[in-house]
Amino acid sequence: MNIEQFVEQSTGEWRSMRSGHSLAFQQFEEVLSIVEINALDVGEAKVSNFITSQGIDTTKVTSPFAMRWEAESDWEPDDPSAVAEGSCILIPIPKTETTGVILRSVGYAEAEQASSSYSFSSDGTLNLLTQYGQSIAEERIWFVSDNVRCRSSVLRTSEGTGILQTSFASEVRRIKA
Amino acid sequence: MNIEQFVEQSTGEWRSMRSGHSLAFQQFEEVLSIVEINALDVGEAKVSNFITSQGIDTTKVTSPFAMRWEAESDWEPDDPSAVAEGSCILIPIPKTETTGVILRSVGYAEAEQASSSYSFSSDGTLNLLTQYGQSIAEERIWFVSDNVRCRSSVLRTSEGTGILQTSFASEVRRIKA
Repeated sequence: MNIEQFVEQSTGEWRSMRSGHSLAFQQFEEVLSIVEINALDVGEAKVSNFITSQGIDTTKVTSPFAMRWEAESDWEPDDPSAVAEGSCILIPIPKTETTGVILRSVGYAEAEQASSSYSFSSDGTLNLLTQYGQSIAEERIWFVSDNVRCRSSVLRTSEGTGILQTSFASEVRRIKA
Repeated sequence: MNIEQFVEQSTGEWRSMRSGHSLAFQQFEEVLSIVEINALDVGEAKVSNFITSQGIDTTKVTSPFAMRWEAESDWEPDDPSAVAEGSCILIPIPKTETTGVILRSVGYAEAEQASSSYSFSSDGTLNLLTQYGQSIAEERIWFVSDNVRCRSSVLRTSEGTGILQTSFASEVRRIKA
């Protein structure tokens, strides 16, 4: 598996079930959401502007894509503002066939721009490591069939080995983009 | 990672948070449980009896262990009978340093004896594949720190590629056995 194949296999609209585990308090969170993934062209203005702003050579970029999500948490079911939505642009910069960096216009654990290092395991799992200001997120994404993929994440404190939270998402494709 | 190290690292009492995802109905299940893992000796009667009953040569067995669990599902919180408990003996039979078979005295997805093939990924993840009568379970177990491990599972129909259910458990060690 390489990043080009992975992005190609990921495009479409996904119905996601996500469970969060707060380990210290043994609290569960359940989130249903729609995730949309679309391939982008390196030549598109929003892509090339972001690449240029990061001082990256466009020829080093492979398979940029956009993610959009609309989530409804179970924490405040009666609060319409609890519907979280957002979007970001992701820019893969391969280093080798199975490793590289992905730049993200908006982070996931913290609301800032983020850079993740990635590597593929021999079984095709995408491993992502993202250093934020206060935490480190480790994600694994793998396909269990053409139209079902799983994502697990572990959030650590950036200083030590304390594990703040884990999460797991099961995603079923609704529409191939 | 090999099976001997993995069993050694797994012994103790674990506090487990487990989320199940029924994909067709988008239903969440939440289970809190205590899981106890203890190393066994090949010479113990309950181990050697089980090995012999399976027609296995005891010299091929490495690091047998016992698992005991006590789970309380959120599905019927007021029903004391919803507290599921059970135990089993697990008998690893390595084939190579990173692959082999684990015999289980009681299955996990279905209440029958089970045989799982296992393999370790390069990152130390234990991958288990278990064929039951009606389904195939794929499990991944990996340590995210010395005292925190994650388990994901995917349950497929045995005939095709239909995915029935996924689950994810976060386990924190309480007491080292």
